[in-house]
Amino acid sequence: MNHPAALADRYPTRTETETQVIAREDAVVQGSAQDGPLDSEELSSFEEKGYLSIDQLISPDELALFKRELSRLAQDPAVKQDERTVVEAKSDEVRSIFEIHRTNEIFAKIANDPRVVERARQILGSEVYIHQSRINYKPSFTGKDFTWHSDFETWHAEDGMPAPRAVSVSISLTDNYSFNGPLMIMPGSHQHFISAVGATPEDNHEKSLVMQGAGVPDAETLTEFADRFGIDVLEGPAGGAVMFDSNCMHASNGNVTPYSRSNVFLVYNSVENLPTDPYAAAKPRPEHLGSRDFTPAGS
Amino acid sequence: MNHPAALADRYPTRTETETQVIAREDAVVQGSAQDGPLDSEELSSFEEKGYLSIDQLISPDELALFKRELSRLAQDPAVKQDERTVVEAKSDEVRSIFEIHRTNEIFAKIANDPRVVERARQILGSEVYIHQSRINYKPSFTGKDFTWHSDFETWHAEDGMPAPRAVSVSISLTDNYSFNGPLMIMPGSHQHFISAVGATPEDNHEKSLVMQGAGVPDAETLTEFADRFGIDVLEGPAGGAVMFDSNCMHASNGNVTPYSRSNVFLVYNSVENLPTDPYAAAKPRPEHLGSRDFTPAGS
Repeated sequence: MNHPAALADRYPTRTETETQVIAREDAVVQGSAQDGPLDSEELSSFEEKGYLSIDQLISPDELALFKRELSRLAQDPAVKQDERTVVEAKSDEVRSIFEIHRTNEIFAKIANDPRVVERARQILGSEVYIHQSRINYKPSFTGKDFTWHSDFETWHAEDGMPAPRAVSVSISLTDNYSFNGPLMIMPGSHQHFISAVGATPEDNHEKSLVMQGAGVPDAETLTEFADRFGIDVLEGPAGGAVMFDSNCMHASNGNVTPYSRSNVFLVYNSVENLPTDPYAAAKPRPEHLGSRDFTPAGS
Repeated sequence: MNHPAALADRYPTRTETETQVIAREDAVVQGSAQDGPLDSEELSSFEEKGYLSIDQLISPDELALFKRELSRLAQDPAVKQDERTVVEAKSDEVRSIFEIHRTNEIFAKIANDPRVVERARQILGSEVYIHQSRINYKPSFTGKDFTWHSDFETWHAEDGMPAPRAVSVSISLTDNYSFNGPLMIMPGSHQHFISAVGATPEDNHEKSLVMQGAGVPDAETLTEFADRFGIDVLEGPAGGAVMFDSNCMHASNGNVTPYSRSNVFLVYNSVENLPTDPYAAAKPRPEHLGSRDFTPAGS
């Protein structure tokens, strides 16, 4: 594999027979307050907790536009049949549409917008490119849960991302209440890498987007982490956003309330952290899950 | 059926082809502050919202005792095989054990304790008896949800309870966080009865305790109710309790966190509201789900 011997894998995963917790070596915030737009308080809070919330990132008009576009896409038969769309087996409803920063003009625009890109650049301390993009839809009454995981664990194992020098931006298209299955983060967990047990099944991504499996930490380690770091529930209005480090331990509960949840999800990776071959999979995941187009965003 | 013509059914359900919302005629609080222990502020809040919270109902020693007893029961093979125990098919784990106020000395004692019984008497304005009792266990990581319903709808349809003159007490054996699938109530919803559509399947209770079906309101009515009343999330420490009216619209989400939830659940009905034949079922549910022993509690 394309991993020069000089660059040993500092985040080994899916190899051991027992879970290992490895201290993170890479800095979380690599830019400074002088780079703007985040101030030093916001940056140190991000460093400490692994996430930050933005009350209003997009305008009410943009919000309305994005919601209309999501609704249109979810009802488009061609989109539903596309391999980049995840449809829930039980209800036959669209749950996620990937690669929207390339296939859709509206979402391409926000993915390259300075409001998002400059914050990502500032945190990662370099130019950034889009590793993945999607819109997520968690329906009312029947929204399913996602159990605890670090995105970086998957991106490292299956996409070959060397270090956790990536940040996700989730722009809320609906209000996030404590009761409609919002994002939950263990603040501070991003400073520790949980090495998962067991090899990656072939074409794991075909199942893992519907039903999580490989890469999910064991119950004992998750309990220790929750006791140590606590759990923050990320409430907030539509039009706001959350930015979080790629190695945050996060999850969301299901949703039996009448209030659905949807968001635009954008992942920025540093151009100084380009993927190599996967660290724990036979071949990289498809382009729409882990992009190999490293063109800087916003350029 | 044993419903004198003079007593027309004021809460018809499972008969119509469309959902009906019927204004409640029966008073919610039938006692007064002079009866104690609840003061007039607590009573009027209960009247308005349909529930009240008690920060500490039982002592730390009782809490430890109850938890040990729950753990012992959940591991007892005889209890697991008992028809009064609900075991989850997927995990083969105990979820609920019914009729504990008769089969277990420790829980019989708290079910007849003045701290509980006097509050129930005061709200219902009469002597009370135990219509149902159980311990509930919602596991960590895999706890399942319960969708929106009114308990009274079931007790009326399937147990023959004439009016919503009953109150439930849920004593928390674990801390209730917003994130571990706590009780959610639509405050004020208890003033309205949602008449459910469709007949009761035969022996419905055998399925409904595992997978809800009959009696669940439609999505449109639930959305209207949520928009109108809002959703209260009932957080609170272990050892505390919630008392809520039998006609509250309530639900709970699943639980992917490492923190399980368990409670002792006691239902008190007024001795002036004794069940007749079921209003919308061929025969009454078994004794452990709807008791026909009307001996006053705490006597």
